[in-house]
Amino acid sequence: MEFRQFEQGYGIRLHKGEAVTQSLQAFFRKHRISTATLWAIGALEKVRLGYFDRQQKRYLEKEFPGVYELVGFTGNVSLVDGEPFLHAHAVLAGPDYVTFGGHFFEATVAVTMEVVLFTLPVTIQRKWDQETGLKLWYLSGM
Amino acid sequence: MEFRQFEQGYGIRLHKGEAVTQSLQAFFRKHRISTATLWAIGALEKVRLGYFDRQQKRYLEKEFPGVYELVGFTGNVSLVDGEPFLHAHAVLAGPDYVTFGGHFFEATVAVTMEVVLFTLPVTIQRKWDQETGLKLWYLSGM
Amino acid sequence: MEFRQFEQGYGIRLHKGEAVTQSLQAFFRKHRISTATLWAIGALEKVRLGYFDRQQKRYLEKEFPGVYELVGFTGNVSLVDGEPFLHAHAVLAGPDYVTFGGHFFEATVAVTMEVVLFTLPVTIQRKWDQETGLKLWYLSGM
Repeated sequence: MEFRQFEQGYGIRLHKGEAVTQSLQAFFRKHRISTATLWAIGALEKVRLGYFDRQQKRYLEKEFPGVYELVGFTGNVSLVDGEPFLHAHAVLAGPDYVTFGGHFFEATVAVTMEVVLFTLPVTIQRKWDQETGLKLWYLSGM
Repeated sequence: MEFRQFEQGYGIRLHKGEAVTQSLQAFFRKHRISTATLWAIGALEKVRLGYFDRQQKRYLEKEFPGVYELVGFTGNVSLVDGEPFLHAHAVLAGPDYVTFGGHFFEATVAVTMEVVLFTLPVTIQRKWDQETGLKLWYLSGM
Repeated sequence: MEFRQFEQGYGIRLHKGEAVTQSLQAFFRKHRISTATLWAIGALEKVRLGYFDRQQKRYLEKEFPGVYELVGFTGNVSLVDGEPFLHAHAVLAGPDYVTFGGHFFEATVAVTMEVVLFTLPVTIQRKWDQETGLKLWYLSGM
């Protein structure tokens, strides 16, 4: 990973072979990024995506075997139990240009991944929500 | 809906059951947001998307019956006849991870929807365009 | 093309018939935009997308014959040999709402294209990377 900081955020390049979520979360901890929004393009492999099953209150999960263009990646960073947590959704495309997508668990960088992150001058936390079984943004009481 | 304001925008969480476009447009009016850009991830149902038919100069429209991960949502806010107007396009994925997308009309939040909105320090208006039959950004004369 | 400048960037509307990449790159040169991030929605035709083949170290390329909603477009601007260079990935949807995507080479605006661009207060350059055969973000040495 290499990065360039600017006033309101970072440009980050993940290198081939890096684990995306693991690398980004380590970056957030090291740079004390608690609340942010980010986007990315690049190429990924060993992509693990999820679909949240409301009845079972858990994510279904699937790993995709190919090498894909990362054609959409929208995420945010907020605090869970005091630690920065990445929540991102991704869209990928194979050599046939067909796209698929879901909740982004993890992937390995296949070529490069270019991330733009804007830190937000506020602290957003996630808290356990019994109805859905997920840790959701807790913004109320403002 | 709950939200947290920061210097250049808002983090907004829409609750399960809320109508996305209706809730966001009410929020824009209440907070006097005239010009902005926004992104979101979450899970939606009763999703109504459109495809603009140039010959007919109108949107085709379809409602999707399932519950979907919202894997891409890019939109902007500008003024139409003095009122804030949301223009957004969306990409969704089902439990098979297959994606579909289009012009976003409306949907109901299925689990959560996390929106990051940046207000833009400028006022952009839409005006009727006879050639296309759409209200388009009017930026000229600058 | 018409545009409205604001403190940290630009709202840009591309007109029907304009070549997206060509028009945007001319805009970047004219306005001396070296490093930026951008997003767009709209409707495009004559869309040329790519998929990077790691073995061949080159992009496969395909042109799509229809008129499509541009449902996702994430890009960045950085310098290649001193000139601003657009790197963007796109997701498109046809009248059946089926999506496809890839590396964005070029397209013609079919109806409108609404771009929001944020300039980044930093200069990012791309340099030739022998391993991948691509010009990648060069951020190290910071």
